[in-house]
Formats: sequence, C-alpha cells, structure tokens
Amino acid sequence: MQFKSDQRISAIQQLKENDFDVVIIGAGITGAGIALQAAASGLRTAIIDMQDFAEGTSSRSTKLVHGGIRYLKTFDVDVVADTVSERARVQQVAPHIPRPSHMLMPLYDDPEATFTPMSAEVAMGIYDKLANVPKDSPYVHRLLSAEEAHDYLPMLDSKGLVGLAIYLDYQNNDARLTIENIKQAVSDGAVAVSHLKATSVTPDGSGKRISVADTFTKELFDIKGKVVINAAGPWHDSITEFADETTQDAIRPTKGVHLVINQDRLPVPNTVYFDSGFHDGRMLFVIPRANKTYFGTTDTDYTGDYLHPKVEKADVEYLLTAMNNHFPHANITVDDIQASWAGLRPLIGGTGDYNGNTKKKVASDENLHALDESLNKYFKHEIDREAVDEQLESLAGNKKSTSSVSRGFQIKAENGIVNVSGGKLTDYRLMATETMEEIAKIFADKFEKTVTPVDATQYPVSGGHFDPNNVDGELEKYAEELMKYEVNEVKAKEIASLYGSNTPEIIEYIKTGVSAPKLSVAETSMLHYAIEKEFVLRPIDYFLRRTNYLLFKSEDLARLETPVIDEMAKMLSWSDETKQAMTEEYISARDESQLKALKKEFK
Amino acid sequence: MQFKSDQRISAIQQLKENDFDVVIIGAGITGAGIALQAAASGLRTAIIDMQDFAEGTSSRSTKLVHGGIRYLKTFDVDVVADTVSERARVQQVAPHIPRPSHMLMPLYDDPEATFTPMSAEVAMGIYDKLANVPKDSPYVHRLLSAEEAHDYLPMLDSKGLVGLAIYLDYQNNDARLTIENIKQAVSDGAVAVSHLKATSVTPDGSGKRISVADTFTKELFDIKGKVVINAAGPWHDSITEFADETTQDAIRPTKGVHLVINQDRLPVPNTVYFDSGFHDGRMLFVIPRANKTYFGTTDTDYTGDYLHPKVEKADVEYLLTAMNNHFPHANITVDDIQASWAGLRPLIGGTGDYNGNTKKKVASDENLHALDESLNKYFKHEIDREAVDEQLESLAGNKKSTSSVSRGFQIKAENGIVNVSGGKLTDYRLMATETMEEIAKIFADKFEKTVTPVDATQYPVSGGHFDPNNVDGELEKYAEELMKYEVNEVKAKEIASLYGSNTPEIIEYIKTGVSAPKLSVAETSMLHYAIEKEFVLRPIDYFLRRTNYLLFKSEDLARLETPVIDEMAKMLSWSDETKQAMTEEYISARDESQLKALKKEFK
Repeated sequence: MQFKSDQRISAIQQLKENDFDVVIIGAGITGAGIALQAAASGLRTAIIDMQDFAEGTSSRSTKLVHGGIRYLKTFDVDVVADTVSERARVQQVAPHIPRPSHMLMPLYDDPEATFTPMSAEVAMGIYDKLANVPKDSPYVHRLLSAEEAHDYLPMLDSKGLVGLAIYLDYQNNDARLTIENIKQAVSDGAVAVSHLKATSVTPDGSGKRISVADTFTKELFDIKGKVVINAAGPWHDSITEFADETTQDAIRPTKGVHLVINQDRLPVPNTVYFDSGFHDGRMLFVIPRANKTYFGTTDTDYTGDYLHPKVEKADVEYLLTAMNNHFPHANITVDDIQASWAGLRPLIGGTGDYNGNTKKKVASDENLHALDESLNKYFKHEIDREAVDEQLESLAGNKKSTSSVSRGFQIKAENGIVNVSGGKLTDYRLMATETMEEIAKIFADKFEKTVTPVDATQYPVSGGHFDPNNVDGELEKYAEELMKYEVNEVKAKEIASLYGSNTPEIIEYIKTGVSAPKLSVAETSMLHYAIEKEFVLRPIDYFLRRTNYLLFKSEDLARLETPVIDEMAKMLSWSDETKQAMTEEYISARDESQLKALKKEFK
Repeated sequence: MQFKSDQRISAIQQLKENDFDVVIIGAGITGAGIALQAAASGLRTAIIDMQDFAEGTSSRSTKLVHGGIRYLKTFDVDVVADTVSERARVQQVAPHIPRPSHMLMPLYDDPEATFTPMSAEVAMGIYDKLANVPKDSPYVHRLLSAEEAHDYLPMLDSKGLVGLAIYLDYQNNDARLTIENIKQAVSDGAVAVSHLKATSVTPDGSGKRISVADTFTKELFDIKGKVVINAAGPWHDSITEFADETTQDAIRPTKGVHLVINQDRLPVPNTVYFDSGFHDGRMLFVIPRANKTYFGTTDTDYTGDYLHPKVEKADVEYLLTAMNNHFPHANITVDDIQASWAGLRPLIGGTGDYNGNTKKKVASDENLHALDESLNKYFKHEIDREAVDEQLESLAGNKKSTSSVSRGFQIKAENGIVNVSGGKLTDYRLMATETMEEIAKIFADKFEKTVTPVDATQYPVSGGHFDPNNVDGELEKYAEELMKYEVNEVKAKEIASLYGSNTPEIIEYIKTGVSAPKLSVAETSMLHYAIEKEFVLRPIDYFLRRTNYLLFKSEDLARLETPVIDEMAKMLSWSDETKQAMTEEYISARDESQLKALKKEFK
C-alpha cells in the first residue's frame, strides 16, 4: 500500500511520541463513546482500530436506537429502564442522528406470541413511564384493535391479527454516531488512528505498552498508556488473551443479517416489528429509510471469520420467507435485494441475545400486571427501588440484580486494563460513563490522580452542537444556508442531516468552489471533508460508513464510483497498485453487499 | 352491462326531465371548468362525456401547471402572460392540487438551443414579472453558471453545459383538477353524467335538443338545453359536424407519451426541462412524483383511433435515447418502465404545438432584450398595452394581435353552440371565463335574460375550500385529524392532499368503521367516496384517474386490485358478466400502461 495521508502521518507521530492516559483498543461505538468522554474529561486519549472506525460491528446493526420492549417479558426492567432513558440522552447529545418515530408491533393470536394485546398494553405503559414520554406527546403509546390494526397496516397479513401496538422508538445511523463521537474526541485532543492492529499489551512501569502494527504500511511500533481499554467487541477475547488477562464470560457472537429492497417493493409507513412466525423466539424489523425498505435480522451462532461475516443463502431464505408470510402481496425475491449487510453481536456468553431471545422465564400477563402496579408505586415514591427489585426476583422466580449481566454489558477492570464487553448500541454512552468511573478509580488508586469525568449527558458529539429540542428547525436552517451556494434542495437536506452543526464546515469547502472531475462542488466537499476530517482512507469507508450510499442510495453509485476513487487517489497520493487494490476491494465489497454471487445460487 | 348506480340513475332522470340553460358536451378540464362557472352563476347546467370524466385527454397531460417560458422565444407574450397569471389563480381556487416547485432548465452550447444563458435570463425576468413573483420569494428565478449547474445537477451530462435556469413552475394532477371542478358544479346544482355520448345536436324551438346514447345501457334519449357547449377536445370537429356548424380551424391532434420509472433509477430533485437533443425543436420534462420519476413527452402527428392512442416502440426509443443522452449514468431500459400513458393534444390546426414547437420567427437575444425593456416600461405605466403590442409586431416581423389563436385556444359561438377548441390545461379557468361571456351574450341576445358570471378567480373547486396561502399547514391539520382514526401517517397525508377540504367527508365514512374484505377502513372509505361522490363506474376510473395508483403507486396494485373490484361489484350490483368485462377491461388497461406487450418487442 503506497499512499500518503497527512492527517494519519501526523496522528501516528503523536502516538509514537506521547505517553497517553488512556489507550482504547477498538473504535466501534463503545470505544468511540469512551474516547469522547475521556478526552472531554481532560485525559490524554488515544483510540485505535485494526479496521476502519465502526467497521467491525458498529456499522452493521439494525440502525435503531431501540428500547427493547421485549425485555419486559423477561422482567429485565433494568435493561429497559437504562435503554429508554439512554435513548433520550443520546438524542440530546447527537440530535442530528437518532430520529424519533413510531414503532408498529402487530400482535397475532398465537400461543407462542411474544405479546398478547393485554401484555403489550401493560408493557407499553411501563415502557412510556420508564422513558418519561409526556402524556400529550404524539409518540405516547396506543393499542389498536384487530380491525384498526388491519386499517393501519393493510398490507400486513390479517389472518390471526389481534391488534397493533404503537409506541416510540428511534431510527439511528450507527456508523455516523461512531464517527461523530470520535471526531468530538479528536477535537478535544484525542488521537485516533484506524488500521492499527494491537498485537500485544505488556506492563511498562506502572502503565502499559501497546504494540501495534500498521496494517497498511506494516510498520510496527509501541504506544504507551497508563490505562488500556479493551473495547474490541467480537475481538474482545483475543485482546484479553494477549493482554494476559482473563474475563469471566467469553464473547460468543451471533450473526445478524439485514437486506435492503426498494421502498416500492414494500412501502411501510414506519418501522414494523413482529415475531418471525417460525416459533424460534426471534422478532424481525421492517424499516423505511430514504426510498428503501430494509429488514432483518437473523440471529445465528457464529464461529466463522470475525472479519468477514457473510450473508448466506439460508439467511436470505429465512428473511424472505418471513417477509412474504407477513406481507402476503409483497412477493419479495432475491432479485429485489439491492444491498445487504451481516454483522456480529458481541454477546457475553450465555446471556441470550440482545433482542431478548433468551431462555429465561417469561412473564405471564398477570405477572406483568403485578410488575406494572409495583412500578406505579415506585414512581409515586410509595415504595423504594429495593422493593421493586424484590418483587422482580419473586416474579421472575430467580435471583435478579442490577448486575451488569442483566443489562447486557460488563465492565471489568484488571491490572490497568478495563475490559468492556457485550452491550447494546443504544447503551454506548452509559457504558462509557461507567467505564470512566473505572478509569477514574484506577487513576486514583494507581496514579494518585483525581479524574473528574465530564457530565456526558450534556456533552454533544461532533455535529450535535445545536438545540436538540428543535431538530427539524435547525436542520432546515442549515439546509437553507447550503441552498445559497447552488446546492439543490434534496442535496442540501441530505448534507444538513448528515453533518448537523458541522454543515458550516462543509460550506467552507463549498465556498472554495473546488470540484473534482465529474463531481459537483457539494459532492467534492463531502468527499474532501470525509478524507480530511472523518478519517476516510478507502473508497469503501466513504461509500459504506460515512455516507451509507452503498446501502440506501445504490442509484448514485454508478455515477459516483469512478470519480470518487479518482479523487481519493489524487488526494491520498495512491500508487497505481494501491489504486487498483483499493478499487478491487471496493468492488468486491459492493458486489458482496449486492449479493451478486449469492443471487446465482438461487437460479 | 348490468349494473346499478343510484347516483347515475337519478342524474339521468334529471337529464330527461329538465330543460337546461347550458349543456356541456365533453367533461375534460375545459368542460369541467365551464360547468363549475355556469353552475356557480346560477345556470341550470348539464355536463356529459362519452367516456369517464377526464378520460379522453385531461388525464394524459404532463401533469404540470406549466408557464410555457418557451413562448417568449416566439414573442407570444400574451400566451405567457395569460398562463403565468392563470397558474397563480388556479393555485388559489384549487390549493390542494397545483404545488409550486422549482423548474430546472439546463442550457447547452448548441446553435439550435432554445435558450442561451442570456436569453434565458431575460426570459425568466419577463416571466417572473408577468407572474408577479415577489422578489423575496424562494421561487424567484436564478441563472447558474456552467459549473454551478453541474453542481446543482451532477447526474446531468456536463458536456457543453453552459448554465442552469431555475424558476417557478407548478406540479399538477390533471384528472383530479377535472373531477374537483365537476364535483363543485354538482354541489352547485349541475347534473354530470359520464358514458353518455352525444349523437346529434338539433334546433328545438329557440334552444337545442341533444340526442345522447348511454354507452353502458345503450339507452337513447334527449336532453334539452338553451345553449350547447362543444368542449369535446380532440372530438371537437365531430361535434361541429353533426351540429351542422362549421369552424374555421380544424383540430389536428398530436400524440404525447410519458413513461414512469422508479425514482431510484433516476432521482431528480425537481422537474428538469431540456431540449430533446435531436434538433427537432422538442423539449422534454423529467419530473419527480411520489417515489417515481416520469418523463416525456413525444409530439407526433396523430391520425389513429382517438379513443386509444397507444405508446409505440418508436415513442419509447425516442424518450429512452433522449434520457440516456442527458443522464449518462442512468442507463434506463424498457424494463425499467413501470407505467406509461399516451394522450392527444387538441391542437387547432396550423398553430404549432402547445409547448412552442412552431415555425414562427424566433427571437434573437437582442430582440428579447428590447421586449424586456418595453415590458419594463409597460409595468411602470410609462407606455400602454398597445405600444407593447406594436413593438411585439415589429419584433416578430408579422401582424400580432391578442387574438385567440396566439393564445392557443379559440372560442366561437354560432347559433347557440359555443365551440371551445385548443387551449392548454393551465388556461382552463380563463377559457371557461371567456366561454361564460359568450354564454351571457347568447342569453342576452336570444333569451333576453341577464346572466352575471361568477368571479371565478375567487370561486374554489371542490376540496379547495381552505386558506390557499397556508396549504402545508391546512393539509397537515387534515392529516392529523385522520390520524385520530387509526389511519397511519403516510395514508393520512395521502388522503389529505388528495381530497383537501373534503377530508372531513372521508372521515365521516371512516367513522362508520365499514371495511370491505381485505381493504382497510381508510381504503374502503376512499373507494366508497369515489363511487358515491366522484362518479367512479369502472375499476380503471378509480385506479387510473381518481387515485393515479396505476401510474405512481404500482406497488399497491397487486394487493388492492381484487378487493377493490369485488367491492365495486357489490356496491354497483354488477352481474357476473359485467364483473368479468370490467375486470378484463382493467387488466388490459393496466397491462397496456405497463407496456407488457411492447416490452416483448424489445427482446
């Protein structure tokens, strides 16, 4: 690989020259969230990843900030309580990314259904209380009858339909949330470098020495840090191994697949969320985005190559069958699939998946009612938290606690390494806050230094520095500003919602009037910004994670691919061989996302 | 045909029993506009059509309320002046139908180009002045440079691109505008019946006897009327023939074809309008609508069956070639076409087509400048209208006048028949107003009755009875009202913008909770309303003209077709044979719109 990124060269120089307070291995959403809080708290922070930021897992989620109402069925009230209040906090600190919308959950007459209308009503009531949804909000929950449900979603199979639960949920952009956390950390002094693989972590005085390999240049060097954070997600255990640490629970990832079709193949007004229908305990999402509809997810144990989880024939068959069963007129075929992705969930072994596919005892409607009543008392301050927990234990029939396990994530500090494992994307900020507490403890105990963690509920990510209570109005203003510079309305809205309060930075690029051959000034500006400020090193970084074009705007690819790659080659001084390799890598990833090879297996 | 429509039976009874003041033959937009004004002016009005309302021509337009900037190039200032001020008036009386949007006109370096950047700038200036576009409007015209043009529309071929003209135009729904005019006339006392073919018009005392044939039941009967209006569009001459009248100019229709593709095959932010590129004097439109993009139009002399103009292979090849030339990365093929339509323009012989394809002298940039200056003086009241006309004559090098010919339509009264011919859809209200003057004249001369025409600039169509200066806000309110009745957001917005101030009537249907098998209450309500209040008699009336689903929502057809046809059979008491015939007619029209047969010719 011969290329030259001034930004990266300078960052690597800093990694070599400085002693860091915190070195974070793994720049998915977990590591990125920690980097933001560490840097904002005044700690010298480094964050590295062996791939692109968010590449491993955090760009492969369902792309919701999902409250997980299903957890209520297994008495995991703490998970839900954490999650729904976190949702609201994430919306406040990253107002351009999560967008509130209605979640539509059809309910069927099936003894194995996750929710009956009655339990859905109770669960939604608890859910809104925990999430503090105002009674006059347009997003307050509702339960529709069977007939009303059919009216609301007439494309849905009406056989056995007994109701429709409607409640608040948020759409998300996982990869953008990750990069905006990292950008904020960097603007607060952190050093972030992608494609640096940690090969060992060894003691170094009172701190640690992290040996790393530049996966592009093959250069080996060391980074010094007082505290190391293992936020490697599915690779968590490999870090704990070479760091000579042990963790109680091993990561046992499962694979989740999502497929994208054109919206006109199945236009849904909002996210629809239903039991798979296969009595496998799974629930599926169908989500409208841009002019596409996407759906998922599968959930299968995974033992293959962590770097390249693939969509397989069985995944497609499972999802298409479920979709065509639920939407009898859709007739979706493999040829309708325009894009896809497969990701791994970094689950802590034995805790079930994060969408609630668990073998735990499931609440009866009566038990849920009892829980609801006890929560009502708690909210009225008639009983305390312990009393609620006791009732939860008695209802669930097993020892419950507010332990990290029941919340789906685990933070364990050992010998100057903080291992963060498991967790839902929605909880990333909370996990980072708790990690900060561990970091502060280590600094207090080992380095006699007082670390005062920033109040991260009030600390926006990059691009989120505007009024979170007037998102539409603020984004509209940014779009109008852009339209003064020959940016058409559609593009202006795209840029404003992608970059939020960084839109003026894009406008500075636009003002130079520079355009790459065959690209508009706006498109060139986005690309230059992505290379100079968003750590884009490869075409696939740009098309897949910075813009999502590969997933949700396939119609623009044919026109953009060659000019973008040409401009990247120029900007990053690629050799011919590098350009060829980059192009081939991109085309291979694109074809795989579009299931080019797999589609032949269906013929 | 065995069926029973109470509404139609009662209307036919009224046609038989009453003497009418005005009988309008032809219920396209021209006849519908006259019916509205006649009824509102207190005249006993009947309007009939041998097909469905708007079926012949008024459902087959480009679906814009188009200002026709091209006319400025041939000094047809009156046409433009009429058209742009009419656009604004139509928006005021039918605020739920025409929607303002930007028109984007790329300019190319080509000696045969319709506009150079300079002439476009002058023409847009005149255009905004004539249309009275406020200087601070977001729709005030702009001229972008070549580079800015490429930025604004990067998907456009940039070879030879020298600029982009941006100005105000309106999107429209031609068939809905027609039906809303007719509904308003009916609520003001008019009688409207479709599928009644006029077979002769003969003198009857001081009035006329119109013999008609019910094309469904084959019943023959007569209608009595004082004044007959020939608004038969392409069939204008056949009415004048059997009415024993002569007109100066014969109708010589040309055929125009439009094709619909999925929006993701070519996403344009606004309507794009450009020279065909074939040096044939044609300009083409590319228009975003719902999640589709459509484009057209061809313009070829037509001598075939007026009832069934068809999309032919040459039409598709012409349009696809032009599109792929202008959008080099689009690669649109015949397989991308999801729907299509072909229509006839009822042009008055020898006056050129209504988009400006004329052999008249074309203005040089200098002449346009001179015209601009003289118009400026006129607007400042420094010179009078006659002086402008004189200059127009001298610039155009031939005798110009404010005659009906130069405005594209002609209104000629002879022996109690008013023949209305030619005309653009945009001018329908103006044509109706001038027709009303002729009607008033006949009543004064022949029947010694004073008719005071209503002020039609202030008289809304059905559905348009709300504040035209707050369209988004008003439609949002209707949508919110609908959402109280288990109508999802997407459907609620669709209904509100389709029915405007009639939304509360739809809500009354919804409140009954009645749903046809496999249809939602909202879908059932729309269908029942269409049958009971919008004269729907056949499935194709509903799917093509009342809802446009056949054109722009093909994704819903598979689910809706059978339940809608079943419900219509029940509502209209169809015999089995009738149901079969209706179904076959629908499927044949649908397959033709989707070019099922034609696509095979391309294999």
